[in-house]
Amino acid sequence: MTDTARRLHGQSLVIDGLQTCAWSRSVFEEMRAGGLTMVNAASLLWENFSEGMAYIRQWERLFAENADLILPVRGIGDIETARATNRTGISIGWQNTSPLEDRLDYVRLFKMLGVNIMQLTYNTQNYSGAGYLERRDSGLTGFGHEVVEEMNRHGVLCDLSHVGDLTSEEVIAHSRKPVCISHVLPRALRDVKRNKPDHLFRACAEKGGVIGVSLFAPGLKAGNDATIEDYLDAMSHVLNVVGEDHVALGTDFSTGHPRPGPWQVWANRDKGYARTLTEFGSSVIRKPAGFARISETPNVTRAMLRRGWSESRVEKILGLNWMRVFRDSWAAEV
Amino acid sequence: MTDTARRLHGQSLVIDGLQTCAWSRSVFEEMRAGGLTMVNAASLLWENFSEGMAYIRQWERLFAENADLILPVRGIGDIETARATNRTGISIGWQNTSPLEDRLDYVRLFKMLGVNIMQLTYNTQNYSGAGYLERRDSGLTGFGHEVVEEMNRHGVLCDLSHVGDLTSEEVIAHSRKPVCISHVLPRALRDVKRNKPDHLFRACAEKGGVIGVSLFAPGLKAGNDATIEDYLDAMSHVLNVVGEDHVALGTDFSTGHPRPGPWQVWANRDKGYARTLTEFGSSVIRKPAGFARISETPNVTRAMLRRGWSESRVEKILGLNWMRVFRDSWAAEV
Repeated sequence: MTDTARRLHGQSLVIDGLQTCAWSRSVFEEMRAGGLTMVNAASLLWENFSEGMAYIRQWERLFAENADLILPVRGIGDIETARATNRTGISIGWQNTSPLEDRLDYVRLFKMLGVNIMQLTYNTQNYSGAGYLERRDSGLTGFGHEVVEEMNRHGVLCDLSHVGDLTSEEVIAHSRKPVCISHVLPRALRDVKRNKPDHLFRACAEKGGVIGVSLFAPGLKAGNDATIEDYLDAMSHVLNVVGEDHVALGTDFSTGHPRPGPWQVWANRDKGYARTLTEFGSSVIRKPAGFARISETPNVTRAMLRRGWSESRVEKILGLNWMRVFRDSWAAEV
Repeated sequence: MTDTARRLHGQSLVIDGLQTCAWSRSVFEEMRAGGLTMVNAASLLWENFSEGMAYIRQWERLFAENADLILPVRGIGDIETARATNRTGISIGWQNTSPLEDRLDYVRLFKMLGVNIMQLTYNTQNYSGAGYLERRDSGLTGFGHEVVEEMNRHGVLCDLSHVGDLTSEEVIAHSRKPVCISHVLPRALRDVKRNKPDHLFRACAEKGGVIGVSLFAPGLKAGNDATIEDYLDAMSHVLNVVGEDHVALGTDFSTGHPRPGPWQVWANRDKGYARTLTEFGSSVIRKPAGFARISETPNVTRAMLRRGWSESRVEKILGLNWMRVFRDSWAAEV
């Protein structure tokens, strides 16, 4: 690693827009090794209200037991504190609004408990809208309009990664705040449903939002043979579409869950137990060589510099773009 | 009332396919005065799992306290017992699958607790499909397909009254058992969204199902000025479309809830508290003169005979059609 890459990575805010690990001290040690300032920790996929509360309780225990490595991110200031104290800030995230069940006012309660980012739905239909694997895309439902309004009001960033195209489009149109697509790849490079079309990237960027580029092999052109260069190719495509102020990291690291394994099977069944939605649960999925582990995050900085990208661009992609979107979306209005 | 009408009403199975009253002893006394053999008691609109359980508990208390007037209907035999003992059988019903939350196996549990009829959704989107007031009709979702399969398997009759047209069509196509539209009026006579088109009546009938004709004034051509003759005109239309084996009563009586009043406001907000869905919550809605109270149910028998309808037809409409559909849909397969 060059001195420039090391210095730049060390001094930058480095934010991973989504991880979905089996959380443990060893994962937090990897985050430190990877120089991560902040992670959106979103392993919640199908949980209901009480299970969503259990996810918070799990984090409160982890925060207490690992205070030398991590700290809870309630607001922007905590991210700065994380950098200043050489720890990783953890923002609790959801990949589904299922814990809201049918209650709008839970948005505020969960925000008070530290949930700063909520994906509207995970893969299938819920009260608010359709996931990308639903039979038909309902668009943003009437209730979903109210959910987005509550998120705007109480400072929850809305994530559209696993959300259907039409629903995504309508969320972007309805939201008064920037939204994100935290972990996604471009459909222009590989035409699979989980990837998103350029027009949604553009709409997200025009709203002031950010697109976190993911490492998910089935969405990369080279699939399981991909390297970190293929990852940067995907990122370059998004950069060309939306410009350097709207691209970021969103790895989707799932460290600690054996693949294939029961967690993958759970993730790939509707509601965690019903019909099987994709074949991902039983297939081997590899991360790109060179960026296969959280601890290898500094390789991205090196690879970006090797492409001749300016330090200013690299800092935006590493963390400043996420910071801007957090600043613009996390402030509560009430 | 003629002797013939009195005799026929007294000896017939008289089944009301849906009431949504504020349940009390005086309502049960009205049911006895109306000569009702059985009622689908479906005041559940937006409840979640624990609230759905509370609805069951409420009924267990009412059954215990009013055993001289009512008895629980767990199966077909209980309807015969009701007639033989001059009581009204109560089948617990839902107007929403919201109490299932995201759990398929709750279908069986609630059936074991006496819930024989479940409307797929009430007015808006839920996990299974779209209500008639949703922005877009998702059709029957992937999860909804599984819910209908569970209903078929465990002997729950699926009701489509407040369900969106496309979702209704797809339920009928997917169900292996007859379904019902428990309380509805024909859109051909008044073009409002809550009414249903003839092609759905036909599809329901072809599946062996039944259509309960309702008294809901905003769906009748004459609105609040309607009389029992307007009600029979609506019934005649459905008869012409599907024939006498598929038409029945489904009054939608809401006795005990003041109109306008808080219950109506609750019914007409999404999830019971969110945005207002219709103006029905604040408007005065009258039942047709001559069939404005549960106790006036015998007037329908008289009015049908006055139209020259055969006793055999009248008996089918009063109860035999519902009985056939219960027999064909309530038996559990496992």
